[in-house]
Formats: sequence, C-alpha cells, structure tokens
Amino acid sequence: MKFTASQIAEVLNGTIEGNENVEVHNVSRIEGGEPGTISFLANPKYTPFIYTTNASIVIVNEDFEATEPIQSTLIRVKNAENAFAQLLEMYNQIKLAKSGIAEQSFIAKSASVGENVYVGEYAVIADNAKIGNNVKIYPQVYVGENVTIGDNTVLFAGVKIYSDCVLGKDCIIHSGTVLGSDGFRFALHDGGKKIPQIGNVVLGDNVEIGSNCSIDRATLGSTILGDGVKLDNLVHIAHNVEIQEKSYLAAHNVVAGSTVIGKNCMFSGQVGVIDHLKIADNTILAAQSGVSKSIRKPGTVHMGSPAMDASKYRKSFVHFRNLDSLVDRVNQLEKMLAELKSQ
Amino acid sequence: MKFTASQIAEVLNGTIEGNENVEVHNVSRIEGGEPGTISFLANPKYTPFIYTTNASIVIVNEDFEATEPIQSTLIRVKNAENAFAQLLEMYNQIKLAKSGIAEQSFIAKSASVGENVYVGEYAVIADNAKIGNNVKIYPQVYVGENVTIGDNTVLFAGVKIYSDCVLGKDCIIHSGTVLGSDGFRFALHDGGKKIPQIGNVVLGDNVEIGSNCSIDRATLGSTILGDGVKLDNLVHIAHNVEIQEKSYLAAHNVVAGSTVIGKNCMFSGQVGVIDHLKIADNTILAAQSGVSKSIRKPGTVHMGSPAMDASKYRKSFVHFRNLDSLVDRVNQLEKMLAELKSQ
Amino acid sequence: MKFTASQIAEVLNGTIEGNENVEVHNVSRIEGGEPGTISFLANPKYTPFIYTTNASIVIVNEDFEATEPIQSTLIRVKNAENAFAQLLEMYNQIKLAKSGIAEQSFIAKSASVGENVYVGEYAVIADNAKIGNNVKIYPQVYVGENVTIGDNTVLFAGVKIYSDCVLGKDCIIHSGTVLGSDGFRFALHDGGKKIPQIGNVVLGDNVEIGSNCSIDRATLGSTILGDGVKLDNLVHIAHNVEIQEKSYLAAHNVVAGSTVIGKNCMFSGQVGVIDHLKIADNTILAAQSGVSKSIRKPGTVHMGSPAMDASKYRKSFVHFRNLDSLVDRVNQLEKMLAELKSQ
Repeated sequence: MKFTASQIAEVLNGTIEGNENVEVHNVSRIEGGEPGTISFLANPKYTPFIYTTNASIVIVNEDFEATEPIQSTLIRVKNAENAFAQLLEMYNQIKLAKSGIAEQSFIAKSASVGENVYVGEYAVIADNAKIGNNVKIYPQVYVGENVTIGDNTVLFAGVKIYSDCVLGKDCIIHSGTVLGSDGFRFALHDGGKKIPQIGNVVLGDNVEIGSNCSIDRATLGSTILGDGVKLDNLVHIAHNVEIQEKSYLAAHNVVAGSTVIGKNCMFSGQVGVIDHLKIADNTILAAQSGVSKSIRKPGTVHMGSPAMDASKYRKSFVHFRNLDSLVDRVNQLEKMLAELKSQ
Repeated sequence: MKFTASQIAEVLNGTIEGNENVEVHNVSRIEGGEPGTISFLANPKYTPFIYTTNASIVIVNEDFEATEPIQSTLIRVKNAENAFAQLLEMYNQIKLAKSGIAEQSFIAKSASVGENVYVGEYAVIADNAKIGNNVKIYPQVYVGENVTIGDNTVLFAGVKIYSDCVLGKDCIIHSGTVLGSDGFRFALHDGGKKIPQIGNVVLGDNVEIGSNCSIDRATLGSTILGDGVKLDNLVHIAHNVEIQEKSYLAAHNVVAGSTVIGKNCMFSGQVGVIDHLKIADNTILAAQSGVSKSIRKPGTVHMGSPAMDASKYRKSFVHFRNLDSLVDRVNQLEKMLAELKSQ
Repeated sequence: MKFTASQIAEVLNGTIEGNENVEVHNVSRIEGGEPGTISFLANPKYTPFIYTTNASIVIVNEDFEATEPIQSTLIRVKNAENAFAQLLEMYNQIKLAKSGIAEQSFIAKSASVGENVYVGEYAVIADNAKIGNNVKIYPQVYVGENVTIGDNTVLFAGVKIYSDCVLGKDCIIHSGTVLGSDGFRFALHDGGKKIPQIGNVVLGDNVEIGSNCSIDRATLGSTILGDGVKLDNLVHIAHNVEIQEKSYLAAHNVVAGSTVIGKNCMFSGQVGVIDHLKIADNTILAAQSGVSKSIRKPGTVHMGSPAMDASKYRKSFVHFRNLDSLVDRVNQLEKMLAELKSQ
C-alpha cells in the first residue's frame, strides 16, 4: 500500500510543505526514518532528528518552526502525535481489511455466518456455530460446535475454540490461543478418574487475548472474561475463573480454578494466583508475585511469593540482601555480651 | 441434544415427581439454574435453593423431604451426587462422540488407521503412522511419520506430533500441544552447533495433557510420561525427562533435561525443576517452587526458590516479613550494649 | 531407513569386525541397546556394557581391546564419539529431507517460492511472501502477507507468522510458535484503547526457536533476534525487544517490552526481565530470576527476585533458611541483656 503526501494531508486535514506527490509505504521513528516512510515530530527532544531524518514525510505541529533546512516533506496539523496515531489506526484497518470465504475452508451446513465475514484457508466452522457480522476468521482457525462469535471479532491464524464457547463483539484473539480446553480436574480418591468438564468459556465485548494462551472451560457454568479484559501472551486461566471488566494480565500469568479477579486490576508478568480466591478491584501485582490468600481491600499493591504488601516486601528484601551483615552483627553482640558477662 | 425427564429417570433408575415430559438441554448449578437445565441437590447446605431454582429438573436423594413447594420436576435416586456425575459423563460421551474420516483430510497411503476412527478436516497423518481403534483426531492435527497412537486416544484440534512418537491407549491431548519438538541442546564449545535430537516421546496409557504444552523428544532414547500422568496447560517437559505413573503437574511447570520424577507426585503451578535431578515418589511442591537439588525421601513437601522443606520455608518467610522489626531489635541491642559498656 | 554395517563403515571411514551385512534402523545407548540399533563406546566407564549390549553394531575407538567375547559387530574409527555424532547428523538430515509442494496447500499467486522448497499439506503462504531456496514449510504453517524467509529455514507443523516479518537463513522454528502477534499496549488514559502495532519481527541467521513461543511484533520498527540466538519452548518476547547475537534463553523466559539483551547471554528457565532495561553481554541469570534493573557490567551472574549478585543471593538465602535460629538468638540476647541490666 502506498499513499501520497496529498492523500495523507487530506485525511489528516493538514497542509503540505514540500513535494505533495512523494509516496510512502510504511511508518518509521524520526530518529531512524528511511525513504518511503512517514514519521512525526511532537516531543521537542526529538527536534534535532527532523534535520537528519530520511523519512519522506514528517507530520509536525502547525506551530513548528524550522531553524535549518529539512529534506522531508512536512504535513502540518493541529496535534502531530494524535494525527500520527490516527494514521496508524487507519493504516492497520486497511492492512487488516479482509473479507470473503476461502474456497479451501470448511463451514458446516448447520452453521450460520453473518455479513461481510472473512474465513481463511483451512479454517473449520463446526455444526451450529453462529458467526456475527464483519467477523474475521484467519486460516487454520477451528470454531467448535455451537460456538457463538459476536460482530467484528477477529480470530488470527490457528486459534482453536472448543464447543459451546461464547465470544462477545469487537474481540481480538491471537494465534495459537485455545479457548475451552478441559479444566485440570481429576477424582484423586477414585484413581485419578477424569471429572467431566461440561461448562464453557464466555468472553465479554472488547476482550483481547494474546498468542498461545489457554483458557479452560468451566466444570459447570462458565469461565468468564468480562468486557475490556486484556490478556498478554502465554496466559493460563483455569476452569470457572472470573475476571471482571477491564483487568489486564501480562505474559505468563497463571490463575487457578474458581478464583474471581475484580475490575481494573493490573498484574505484571509471571504472576500466579491460587484457586478459589477473591482479588479486589484495582489490585496491582508486581512481576512474579504468588498470591495465596484473597485480597479484600481494593487498590492495594502486592509483591513476593507468597505475596504481601509491596512496600513491606521491598523493605524486607533490602534486609534480605544484607542478612550477611545482620548475622555478623548478632555474632558480634553475642561475643560482646559473653565478654561482659565474664567480666 | 435434548432429553426428557422420563429418559433421564430411566437411565438413572430414578422416580419422577412432576412433569415427565419436561425437556433439558444443559446442566446447571442449583443456585443459578435456568429453564431447560438439570441440576442436583446433595449437600443440605444448598437445600434452600431447591425452592427458588429455575432448573427444569433437579436430581435429589430418595429420602429428600420438601418443606415448601418446588417448581422443578424432581428425579429421586439413591445417591444424587453420583447420579449427576454419571449423567455428566454420559452427556460428555454423547457430545464428544465422533467418527468418520473427513474428505478434507490427508492420510498417507503408508499409514494404517484402525476401526471407528474420527479424522477431522485438514488433519494430516503422515507416512507409516499407526492409528489404533476408536481414536479421535480433530481438525488440523498433525501426526508425523512413524507415530503410533493407541486405542481410544483423543487428539483435540491443532495438536502437533513430530515423527516417531508413541502414544498409549486412552490418552487425551488438548489443542495446541506439541509432542516431539527438539530438545534445547547446542554444542557451546563448537559455536552453538545444534546437537541432533534423534529420540522420541513415549506416553503410557491414560495420560492427559492440557493445551499448549511442549514435550521435547529425547536426544537419544525417549522422553517418557508414565501411565496416568496428568499435565495441566502450558507445561514444558524437556528432552529425556521421565515422569513416572500418576504424577500430576499443574499449569506452567518446567522440567529441565534428563530429570526423573517419581510416582504420585503433585506439583502446583509455575514450579521449575532443573536438569538431571531425581525427585522421589509422592513429592509435593508448592506453587512457584524452584527445585535445584534431587529430593531423595519420598512423600515430602517443598516450597521456595531454591526449594526447601515447606514448613521450614513458611517459618523463615514469617521472619522475612518481619525483618524490619528484627533489624530494629538488633539496632536497639547494639545501642543498649554500647550504653552498658560505657557505664 | 535401514543401513548395513558396510555402508556405515564406508561413510565413517572405519573397519568392520563381525557381520558386515547386519542392518540397523535406529540408534541406541550402549547400556540399553536393542537388536537393529547402532551405538558407540567412547567413555571407558561404559566398557562393561559392550559385552552385554544387544545393539547390532557398536562404533569403537580403533585402539579398543576387548577382554571378553562381544556379540555386536564392531566398527573401529579414530574417534568413536565424533563418528557417532557425525552419523546422527547424517541420519537426521536424511530423515528430515523433504521437498515438493503438497497439492493441498495454498500459495498466493503474488508469493514467490525458491528452488527445492517443501510446502506441506494445508500450509498457507499469503500475498507477496518471499520464500528462499531449500526452505521447509511443514503442514498447517501460516506465512502471512509480505513475510520474507531466508534460504534453508525450517518451519515445523503449525508455525504461524504474521504479516511483514523477516526470517534469516538457516533458522529453525518449532511447532506452535507465533511470530508477529500484537504487542500488549493499550492507552490506559483513553479507556484501554488499543495502540496499533505496525512493526514486525526480524530474525537473523541461524536462529532456533522452540515450540509454542510468542514473539510479538514491534509497535513501530522491529522486534529483533540476532544471529545465532536460541530460544527454548514457551518463551515470551514482547514488542520492540532486541536480543543480540548468540544469546540463549531457556524455557518459559519472559522479556518485557523494549528491553535490549546483549550478546552471549545465558538465561535459565522461568526468568523474567521487565521492560526498557539493558542487559550487558555475557550475563548469566539463574532459574526463576526476576530482573528489575539494567545490568551494565558484562559477564556477571544474577539470581533471585528481584535479581541480585548470585553469590550474594546464595549467602543471604542460607541465612534465610536459618532465620528461625537467628530470631532465637536475638530473643536470647534481649533476655540476657535485660538480666544484665537488672543486676
């Protein structure tokens, strides 16, 4: 895809300084721009780069004043940062625009497919699945029996969705992610006999899940990710977990069975939360925290394994680093005290 | 799938109270039942819900005595909990019943396929693979050259099995899991040259592996998961590891090369075990443990990183939480002692 | 594949003692060899096994002197260990040799494919992708729009590569791995609006990535793995990360956004590194380390969470294990001091 400066200026409602016919096919950072790319200047810290960049077009604020000659074509707009973000979004939308049903895909006769849907090569849509409008199903995706997918949702290549799961509108699921695999439940008193996993996974609207995540179906009922929940890559969500609206879990999080995580939580990478806990709204967990007790008070910050108040953890950890000298001091005290007593 | 109360009562050998023609298509918890679902009441704690539930059918113990009117149709059985479990299992068996070879699948001519096998769309069965009876191979699965799969084993959508691996009977492998990828071995003294990984992965009978796991092939010989081993999601098992019968590893476990894990072990989530260790039978590891030494004594419990005796770890961790006050006390002791000495 | 002793002796430039027509189809360890396999003896510790092994052929050093009768056919070579390694490599090359384009694959008309390329069943090569010579693309792989893949690179079954990514020569990517999924970036001040991820992933030459890894595309620019970088399984590399030449990251590593890792680093399993850090060349990280600050000095070893100098961590951890007795000692000191003062 190529765009001319005049096409871009029109979209951004900007004015051109330089060659209005110059073409760009990609975006770049101003400090590393190459010919054929478009960049932007908003932060004054980066101003020196505008005189050296090879980017063909640079978006600048309308009040930008050059103090040296500039090679690039400029597009002046009200707010260069916002304009660039707008451009990126449009670029992505154009790039990811896809529709049509590939001949080499399999859609069961009993499935229903909405309008303007993309189904890529070797994708499978099983019996009674219901696909909304404008949904994009990339190649090699598997949509199991009775699955429901809301409008505008995107499943990237190779996503696997087991039967009966329900996805809301405007969701994005990245490659390799599995929704609805069985919960890890076995009757230990009965020789490890498998406990049937009859439930499903339900995603709200505007949920994004990174690549290679595993979200298990509920034993009974639903494993639930609320509206606006975002998961990074390689996250494990066990059976019957509920994550409420707009909580963010970073890469390699592990949430064990039946735990309920409140709204607007932020968990850093490699966090683990054991089963059957309740985590209050707005909880923040530092990387590698291991939560073993419910967190009842909203808005607190935790760290460590087992996790505790983060500032207390940091204090204790400073002492941990210096334990050697603390032990020396206790040795010294014992020696001194022994001397005192023997006097 | 829909079933009437009379169909279910017949299967469970129970007696009906209410509408024998009412139909259900799903199961529910009694506290949240909806019309069209069947639930059960066993624990007296939940008795109040039987008067408010909207479940169309509730299975109850034969000696249950109602104290208020009940909307739902009741099915009385000897043991309501067992009957419900039996029902779930039957439901799952019916739901997961599949057979037939999809036209849009690829089976090499040299492969052999048993009776009553299911092969889904876009699955690949490569040269000389041997598939037992009643095996279910979901869509987009890859079965490499010379792979052997025992009777009744299920491979869910997108499982990938490299050449030469051997799977026992009655195994279940969930979506995204990879068996037989190369072990992580490079000749560091030789510029990082790859060491060929010639071995395979061997699973016993009745092994279940969750979604998105990675089980590496052995360098020589076999990486082995014994009968009845169960892995949760996103577990990494390195080359030449052996996990013996009926051990359970929860999500995000990492077992490094050539380590041998005994029977009936239970590892919580995010546990790591380094290479070339031996872990005794019945070992229990707390979440996020990092095991750096062999565990020789069977039946012990470990925690921490590096892992140590769990009760000792918990004691030390209590002191860690209070290190700030311990340091204060040592400060105070030094001050007091200095005063004493200066007297 | 079967080979006779005389075929193998010719390749290895060795001399045969025994049956030159005996055939082998697999390799084995000398302590567990079965008929039809070939093994080797180099370490004198294993000499006793040569008199009991059932391996059909054993490669030995040319100066080996038997003290008892041996059943196996021997092949005498200069260096038995090297000869065996050479054999394994040849075996693997023969076993993994594949070429030809499967009829049941999809290659976009605008894609270009080099010479002697293998494309397996149900693989997809999207518009404008460029595939080098001798590339192997296993079944069910997805190669997105504009992706470039260098000569001799191997993508095992089910690898997914998003649009615009660039792979060097001689790379190996294992099953389930995803290159180019979106970075985990949302505008929190703007209701969690997704920040478009416009960049790509760039791999140098001779990179190997294990199974089920997730390498996110850059927001702008590239996420980069340098020449000779090796990742184990289930590794997460976030947007805009750069890992320089010949660094090794073991299973379940997590590297957060925009962090730069130097050359020749070695990270053990389950290591986490937070965002925007710089890690110096030759850094070694112990298993489960959590790095929260840049490491500026090359060649240092770190451990713990948050990570600190490894030898210091080990010292502190010894004291941590004994905190209970340290607290007892402080209790005792306080008691003794109180007694002294009251005298």
